[in-house]
Amino acid sequence: MSDQFVYSFGGDYTEGNAGMKNLLGGKGANLAEMIKIGVPVPPGFTITTATCVAFYENQRQYPEVLEGQVRAALRRTEVTMEKGFGNSEKPLLFSVRSGARVSMPGMMDTVLNLGLNDETIKGLIAGSGSARFAYDSYRRFIQMYGNVVMGIEGEKLEVLLEEAKTKKGVELDTELDADDLKQLVADLKAEVKKQTGTDFPDDPYDQLWGAITAVFDSWNTKRAETYRRLNDIPDHWGTAVNVQTMVFGNMGEECATGVAFTRDPSTGENLFYGEFLINAQGEDVVAGIRTPQPINEVGRKDSTLPSLETVMPDLYSELVTVYQKLEKHYTDMQDLEFTIENHKLWLLQTRNGKRTVKAAIKIAIDMVAEGLIDKREAVMRVEADKLDNLLHPTLDPDADKTLIAKGLPASPGAACGEIVFCADEAETMNADGHKVILVRAETSPEDINGMNAAQGILTSRGGMTSHAAVVARGMGKCCVAGCSEIFVDYENDTFKVGTSLFKKGDIITLDGSTGEVFTGKIATIIPQLDSDFQTFMEWADKFRKLNVRTNADTPHDATVARGFGAEGIGLCRTEHMFFEEKRIRAVREMILADNLDGRKLALAKLLPEQKSDFIGIFKAMDGLPVTVRLLDPPLHEFLPQNEDDIKELADIMGVSLAALKERTEALHEFNPMLGHRGCRLGISYPEIYDMQVRAIIEAACEVAKAGIKVIPEIMIPLVADVNELKFLKDRSKIICDEIIAASGTAIEYMIGTMIELPRAALTADVIAQEAEFFSFGTNDLTQTTYGLSRDDAGKFLSDYTDKKIFANDPFVSIDIDGVGALVEIGVTRGRTTRPNLKVGICGEHGGEPKSIAFCHRTALNYVSCSPFRVPIARLAAAQAAISDS
Amino acid sequence: MSDQFVYSFGGDYTEGNAGMKNLLGGKGANLAEMIKIGVPVPPGFTITTATCVAFYENQRQYPEVLEGQVRAALRRTEVTMEKGFGNSEKPLLFSVRSGARVSMPGMMDTVLNLGLNDETIKGLIAGSGSARFAYDSYRRFIQMYGNVVMGIEGEKLEVLLEEAKTKKGVELDTELDADDLKQLVADLKAEVKKQTGTDFPDDPYDQLWGAITAVFDSWNTKRAETYRRLNDIPDHWGTAVNVQTMVFGNMGEECATGVAFTRDPSTGENLFYGEFLINAQGEDVVAGIRTPQPINEVGRKDSTLPSLETVMPDLYSELVTVYQKLEKHYTDMQDLEFTIENHKLWLLQTRNGKRTVKAAIKIAIDMVAEGLIDKREAVMRVEADKLDNLLHPTLDPDADKTLIAKGLPASPGAACGEIVFCADEAETMNADGHKVILVRAETSPEDINGMNAAQGILTSRGGMTSHAAVVARGMGKCCVAGCSEIFVDYENDTFKVGTSLFKKGDIITLDGSTGEVFTGKIATIIPQLDSDFQTFMEWADKFRKLNVRTNADTPHDATVARGFGAEGIGLCRTEHMFFEEKRIRAVREMILADNLDGRKLALAKLLPEQKSDFIGIFKAMDGLPVTVRLLDPPLHEFLPQNEDDIKELADIMGVSLAALKERTEALHEFNPMLGHRGCRLGISYPEIYDMQVRAIIEAACEVAKAGIKVIPEIMIPLVADVNELKFLKDRSKIICDEIIAASGTAIEYMIGTMIELPRAALTADVIAQEAEFFSFGTNDLTQTTYGLSRDDAGKFLSDYTDKKIFANDPFVSIDIDGVGALVEIGVTRGRTTRPNLKVGICGEHGGEPKSIAFCHRTALNYVSCSPFRVPIARLAAAQAAISDS
Repeated sequence: MSDQFVYSFGGDYTEGNAGMKNLLGGKGANLAEMIKIGVPVPPGFTITTATCVAFYENQRQYPEVLEGQVRAALRRTEVTMEKGFGNSEKPLLFSVRSGARVSMPGMMDTVLNLGLNDETIKGLIAGSGSARFAYDSYRRFIQMYGNVVMGIEGEKLEVLLEEAKTKKGVELDTELDADDLKQLVADLKAEVKKQTGTDFPDDPYDQLWGAITAVFDSWNTKRAETYRRLNDIPDHWGTAVNVQTMVFGNMGEECATGVAFTRDPSTGENLFYGEFLINAQGEDVVAGIRTPQPINEVGRKDSTLPSLETVMPDLYSELVTVYQKLEKHYTDMQDLEFTIENHKLWLLQTRNGKRTVKAAIKIAIDMVAEGLIDKREAVMRVEADKLDNLLHPTLDPDADKTLIAKGLPASPGAACGEIVFCADEAETMNADGHKVILVRAETSPEDINGMNAAQGILTSRGGMTSHAAVVARGMGKCCVAGCSEIFVDYENDTFKVGTSLFKKGDIITLDGSTGEVFTGKIATIIPQLDSDFQTFMEWADKFRKLNVRTNADTPHDATVARGFGAEGIGLCRTEHMFFEEKRIRAVREMILADNLDGRKLALAKLLPEQKSDFIGIFKAMDGLPVTVRLLDPPLHEFLPQNEDDIKELADIMGVSLAALKERTEALHEFNPMLGHRGCRLGISYPEIYDMQVRAIIEAACEVAKAGIKVIPEIMIPLVADVNELKFLKDRSKIICDEIIAASGTAIEYMIGTMIELPRAALTADVIAQEAEFFSFGTNDLTQTTYGLSRDDAGKFLSDYTDKKIFANDPFVSIDIDGVGALVEIGVTRGRTTRPNLKVGICGEHGGEPKSIAFCHRTALNYVSCSPFRVPIARLAAAQAAISDS
Repeated sequence: MSDQFVYSFGGDYTEGNAGMKNLLGGKGANLAEMIKIGVPVPPGFTITTATCVAFYENQRQYPEVLEGQVRAALRRTEVTMEKGFGNSEKPLLFSVRSGARVSMPGMMDTVLNLGLNDETIKGLIAGSGSARFAYDSYRRFIQMYGNVVMGIEGEKLEVLLEEAKTKKGVELDTELDADDLKQLVADLKAEVKKQTGTDFPDDPYDQLWGAITAVFDSWNTKRAETYRRLNDIPDHWGTAVNVQTMVFGNMGEECATGVAFTRDPSTGENLFYGEFLINAQGEDVVAGIRTPQPINEVGRKDSTLPSLETVMPDLYSELVTVYQKLEKHYTDMQDLEFTIENHKLWLLQTRNGKRTVKAAIKIAIDMVAEGLIDKREAVMRVEADKLDNLLHPTLDPDADKTLIAKGLPASPGAACGEIVFCADEAETMNADGHKVILVRAETSPEDINGMNAAQGILTSRGGMTSHAAVVARGMGKCCVAGCSEIFVDYENDTFKVGTSLFKKGDIITLDGSTGEVFTGKIATIIPQLDSDFQTFMEWADKFRKLNVRTNADTPHDATVARGFGAEGIGLCRTEHMFFEEKRIRAVREMILADNLDGRKLALAKLLPEQKSDFIGIFKAMDGLPVTVRLLDPPLHEFLPQNEDDIKELADIMGVSLAALKERTEALHEFNPMLGHRGCRLGISYPEIYDMQVRAIIEAACEVAKAGIKVIPEIMIPLVADVNELKFLKDRSKIICDEIIAASGTAIEYMIGTMIELPRAALTADVIAQEAEFFSFGTNDLTQTTYGLSRDDAGKFLSDYTDKKIFANDPFVSIDIDGVGALVEIGVTRGRTTRPNLKVGICGEHGGEPKSIAFCHRTALNYVSCSPFRVPIARLAAAQAAISDS
C-alpha cells in the first residue's frame, strides 16, 4: 500500500485524476479531474479510501503519517485561498464530505462551515459584511456537527431554532437577526454540553478530526450497510473524505447554490436541466425544504419562479460553458453541484448523473449521433435490469380516473397500493403480501428500506432532485415528489387534499410520468415501446452471443414474449395446463385410478386438451423452437390437502372419503422436493409421459400440415441417471416416430433433459449419450446444491443476511462458486460427448443480468426467462459479450 | 471376437484351461484344467459364454459356425469314448449344464442322460446289463427334459411316477421294475404330447440343441436375474454350456455319486469332507431327497450310515489323491462332484468351495502355515462383509431354552423370528417390518427371495450340501437343514414336532452352529472372537492404509467398537442425547422460549447432562480422537406432531395448547431435509452450539485432569458456505480457548466440518481455509446429489430396480460416478488449501466394502462406521490396499 493517504487539489494544482476513483472515491477523483481541465473548484484535499480501510483494520486507529499529510495539504489550501484555518481575520472554512467509489446518495454524513468558532467568526463577519450570515452559518455548523459528529438527535437542536422563532413571534428563519442567531449559537452550545456532557469543540483542528472520523464511522451505519446490500457494494471498499474550502451560496442576494443535470435525467432530452436557490446552502436544494427555482427557461416545467438564466445571465452562461466542457470530457451526462459566492461560480461536484432507463437509452443514442461514444459504449450505458421499467404497464389512458393531486413527475411508471406513512410499516406490510405506496412529507436515508418495499413513493415536499426523487429513480421505482397539495399527518396516519381525507390502507394510484395521484386502483396497459428502444435493442442484439428464449405456458405469453424479442420457448411447463377446471377432474381420476387401465382412461380425456394447448403455442412460435417439459410436480399437488376440500372432492368424484384420504395419505411425502416427481413419475407411470409425448407430436404434425414451421423439443425433467433418460427416451421415440410416419409430415424433433440435480451435472458426459440437448434448471439445482429448500429458507435467510453469511440470495443471482461450478462441469462434460450439444438455462436466473453474464462466459447457447424479462436478457447478454471481448 | 465357440476336453486332450473362466465359465474352465493335470474327467466340450452373448445380441440366433464346431467336438468325444451319439449299440449320452463365470448354485437348469431314445436305449441295456437302470435313466431324462427344455411343470410329470407306484401298490421308486418303467416312459411321452402339443424329440441332435438353448434361456429367468442382482453379477456376462459324457452312479451297487469339500466348509478344519449315495445320480445328493452317507469316518458327524472309505476303500483312496492334487493345484479349498461308474472314479466338477466366514478365516490361516498361500493372499480370501456373521450375537448359553428339534448345523449364527412357510410371504412380511424364519421341507431356487428376506432358514430335509445349506452359507445366513423331526404342512401353514403344533406367526429361534431349534425368542450374547480371527485381523491391519473409526453416541457403543478395533469415533451425534427423558423437557423449553434469555435458561439445564455424556465417551476412547457433531436435526423433531401428544405436552409445559400448536406449526417445514437444521440452527440460535461446545470442552478438561488423553474434534454439520463455518468456528474458538486457559490443561482440539452438501464439496478449497478436518456425510450427500429423499424413495425405488434403472441402491453402496465424484472433488480441492487435511467419511457407506475401496482409492484418512461393522471396514480397507498395490 502506498504511504500517501492525502491528495491535494485546488488552483492549478492537483495530485489526483478521474482514474483514481478506487482510491479517492468518485467525488474526490472528479474534483481532482475538474481542476485538471480548468473548471473552478474550491481547493482542498481528499483523504483516501485506503485510509478508511486501514482505520477499520487497525481498531479505528489512523496511520501514523496521516496527521502530517493532512497538515501539509491544509497549509497548501491556506496558501491557495490566502486564508488561514482558525485565523480570526481571514478564516478558512471547510466542508467535510464522504465520497465512496460509487455515489451513495444521502447515505454519508456531511459537515459544513467547519472551522468556525468565537474567534474565526469575526473574520467571517468582516469578510462577508454580514453578522447575520456569519451567525447563521455558525448555528448551522453547530447543529450539523452536533448531530453528525457528536451524535445528538437533529430534532433536539432544531427545536432551539423553533423556540427562537416562537419567542420572537416570527415564522421564517430569515426573520431572525444576527443577535437572535448569536444567542441561538450560545443556546446550541449549552444544549450540546447538556446532551453530551462535553463542550462543543472550539479548536478547528479538533473539529476537523471529529468530522473526518464521523465520515469514516458513517461507512458502517445501518443505513449505509442496507444501501450497500441493496446495491451489491462490497463492505471492504471504504469511503474517502473530501475536505474542501467552503464557498457560500448564502452570503446574500449575489449568492446562490444549485444542482444541475447536463441532460434531462427523466426523459434524456439534450437540455441543460437544474434547480437553484438564491442565498442558500447546497443542502437547502436537495433537502426539499424550500421549493427551488429552475436554472433556465427551457427546463422550467410547471415552475413560475425566475430562472438563473434570467437572474444572473453571465454566470448562467459561464455555467453552460463549464457543463459542456464536463460532458465532453466525461462523455456522459453529468450531475453537477455549484455555488455562486458573491457572483463567482464554483463547481462543488460533478459525477455521472443517475437517470431513468428511458433517459439512459435516449442519451446513449443521442451521444452516438453526436459522436461522443460508439454503439458498443452506448449498449453498456443502460443498466439491463432497469429495462423492466419501460415494459411494465402504465395507466390505461381510457380508464376512469379521479385525480386527487398533482406533484412532480419524479420517477416514471405507474404504481398502485395501500397508503402507508412509515417506512418500517411499508416493509412489514409488503412482507405480508400487501402492495403499498409510501407517503411522506419528505424522505430521508432512514426510509430506504420502506422505499424499496413500496410500489411507489409520494412526497409532499422536495423537487426533482430531492432525496425521494433521486433514490426512486435509482431504484427504478415510480415516484411523485413535491406534491404540495397534500398535507401529511403522521400522528393520525392520514393525509388531506383540500377537504378529502385519506387514511392508511386506502388505495391510491401514482403516475410517476405525469406526477398525478389518483384514488383507487386504475387499470394499466402494456406500454408501446418507442423507436429509441427498438434501435437500442437492435444495437444490443448485434453484440450478443447468447440466444434469448422465454418461459411460457400459454399462447398469450408466447405471443407477448415474441413481441419482446424471444427467439423460442425454453420452458413450456405442462402442469399448469393440468389445473384448468375441466382438466383437473381427469387428472384426479388418473391419480385415483388404482390400475393401469384406469389411468389410461383418464389420460385419454386429457390428450385432446393437452394437444390443443400445444397447437396454440406452436402456432404462436411459428419457426422458433419450443421446449416442452413433461410433467414435473408430485401427484399430490393435484389433490386437495385439507379435510373439507377432500370431502368435497370425494363427493364430486363419487369415491368414498376414506378411500380418497387413504390415497392422499399414501401420496404424502416427507420431502416432496426430493420425492416422486419429474421423470420418476415417468418411470412409475410411463403412460403419463406417453400421453404427453403423443399430444406434443400430434399437435406438431397438425400444425406442420397447416404450413407452420414447428420445432418441438421434448424435455425430460429431474434426471439423475442416464438410465432414466434412456428408458423414457426410448419409449417416447417409438411414439413420436409412429405418429410422424403416419402423418406424412417431416417434423424434426429432439429429446433432451433438464440438468437440475448435481448428479446430472457430474455425469453429464454419460447423460449426453442420450440427451440431444441440455437445459439447466437452476432453481432446483440451487436447492439441491445448497441442500436448501426455497419454500423453507425464508424463515431463516434473514439470519444469514443479518450476519453477512450470504452476500446474495442464491435464488435471485446464480451462485457462481457452487451452482455455477456444476453448470460449468455439466457443459464441459456434456460437450465432451456431443461437441455441438445445445445448452440453455431455464431457471429464474435466466432473466437476471449477473447470471446471464455467467451463462455467456460458460458458453451456453441460450437463456430462457419470463416474457417481461426478455429485453433485459437480450441487453444483459450483449453487455456480457462486450465485457468479455 | 474369436470365431471359436466350442472348446473340447477329454482323455489327454484339452483346448481350455483354468484361466479362461470368462470365456468357458467357471465349470468349463475347471473341467479343462482338471484334464490338464491328469484328473479323470468324462470327456465333452464347452460352448462359450461369448456364444450366449452373441445369441442374445442377435435375436436368439446362434453364430453360423456354431453347428459345425459342435459336430466336430462331438465327433472327438465319440472317438475318445469309443461310443456313438445316437448309436444303438454303444450309445454316447450327455449331461448338459450351464456354467457362468461365477458359480450360481441351482440357478441354471441341467439335463442328464441326453441322447436316449427308443433305439439307443437298447445299447444302454446291453452295456449296463440292466433294463431297469436303462428305463429309469430314460424316464428321468424325459421328466427333466420335459420340464427344463419343454417347459412342462415338474409336478405334471412327477405325478405319473407316483401313479405308477400307486397302481403297483409300492412306495419306493426302486420297487418299480423295468417293465413298469418302460410303461412309465410311454406314459410320460404321451403326457408331454398332451401338455405341449408336440412329440417328445427322438433325434438326439434335436435333444442336444433343445438343451443348449434351454441353458442359454435360463440365463434370463427371473430367479437367475434375482440371484445376479443380489450378488452384483452383470447381466452381460452370459453363461457357457458344458456338454459332457454321462457317467452313471446309478448303474448298480458298484456305482455311486457324491460331492465333497477338501476342507470342512463350516469350520474350515483341514478334513476331507463329503457325502455320497450308492447307486444314485448326482442330483439325488444335492436335492436332499435321500439322506446321503458320509464320505469318510472323520467327517461322519451324527450319521450312522456306512462311509465311502469303508465301502470302497480303493476308490476312496484314489479320491483322496485326486482332491489333494486339486487343492494343491488351485491353492484353495475345492468343492468336488464325483461319480463312480462300475468301480471307476470320474470327477465331474471342481470349483473353489463356498464356506462360512469362520471356515474362510481358518482355511486362509492354515494355508499360510502350509505354505500354499502368503498372508497377502490370505487376507483376500475372506469376504469382508461376511465378517458380520462372526460378530453378531449368538444364543446366550445361560438363557432358558425350550428345544423343539435338532437338525444339521448348516450355516452358523443365531436367528429369531416369526414362522413363515412361503418365500413370497417371507418377503412381504419382512418388507412390513417383521422378522421371519422361513420354514420349508426343502428349498429350491424359487425360494431365493424369501431366503434373502428371512432371518434364518429351517428345512426338514436335505444335508449339509443341500440347496438350503449352500445358499444360506453363501448369504451368511443362519440355517438349520435336514431337521427330520419336523413335519411341514403347507396346506395349513403349520409344522408338527411330535404332538406339538407350530403355526405361521409363532416365534422360534434357530442356532445355526448347533442345528438346534427353540421355541420363542432367546437372549443372545456377543461372541468371543477366537484367536484365528485376531490373527487374521492383525494381518489385515498390516496392509491397510485407511484408519477405521466408529459412529458411537454412548460410552457403551464406544467401548464395544474399541473392542472391535475402532481407532477413534468418527461421528458422535449429540441429538440422540437430547431425547432422554429428563432432557427432552429442557430441550422443549428451549424450543418454546420466545427469546434469547429463555433459550439460555433452558440450555443451562442441558449443559451438565451433555457434559456428563462426553465425559463417559472421552474416558472410553482414552488416547483416541472423538469427533462430536453439533446439533443437526430440525427443532420440530423434538416436538410432538399429533394433536393428543401436543395437548399432553401443553399440560406438562404449562403453556396454552394454542401457543404450543402455533409454535409447532411455525416450525413446520415443506422439506425438512432441506430446511432449518445443521449449522443453520447454529446461525439462528448460536447459544445452542455455544452450550454444546462448552459441554465438550469442559468435559475434555475434566477428563484430561484425571490423566486421560482426550482428543476432541468439534464437527459443524451441513455447511454450504465457508461463512457459516467461519461464523460458528470463531464463536466456538473463543469459548474453547477460555475454558482451556481457565482449566490449566493443555488440550488440543480441532474444529472441522461435515461435507454433506454438493456446494461444500465444490467449494472445499475455500471451506478448508476454516475447516481443520473434513468428514464426508455421504447419507445426506447422496440425497442432495440425487435430489432423492431417503424417506420417500422407498415408494418408487422398486420401479427403478424392476426396470433396471439403478444397478445398486445408492444409499447402500456409494454412487461412485456422482456422489463419488463430489467426494473426489472435495478431497482434492480441500487438500489444495491444506495439504495435510484429515478427511474421513461417516455416512453408512463407511462400513460397506465397495464404498471403503472407493475411500481408499480417494486417499481418505479414515472411514467411520457402526461398531459391529468395524472389523468389516478393517478387512475391506486391507483388501482395497492390496488390490491397489
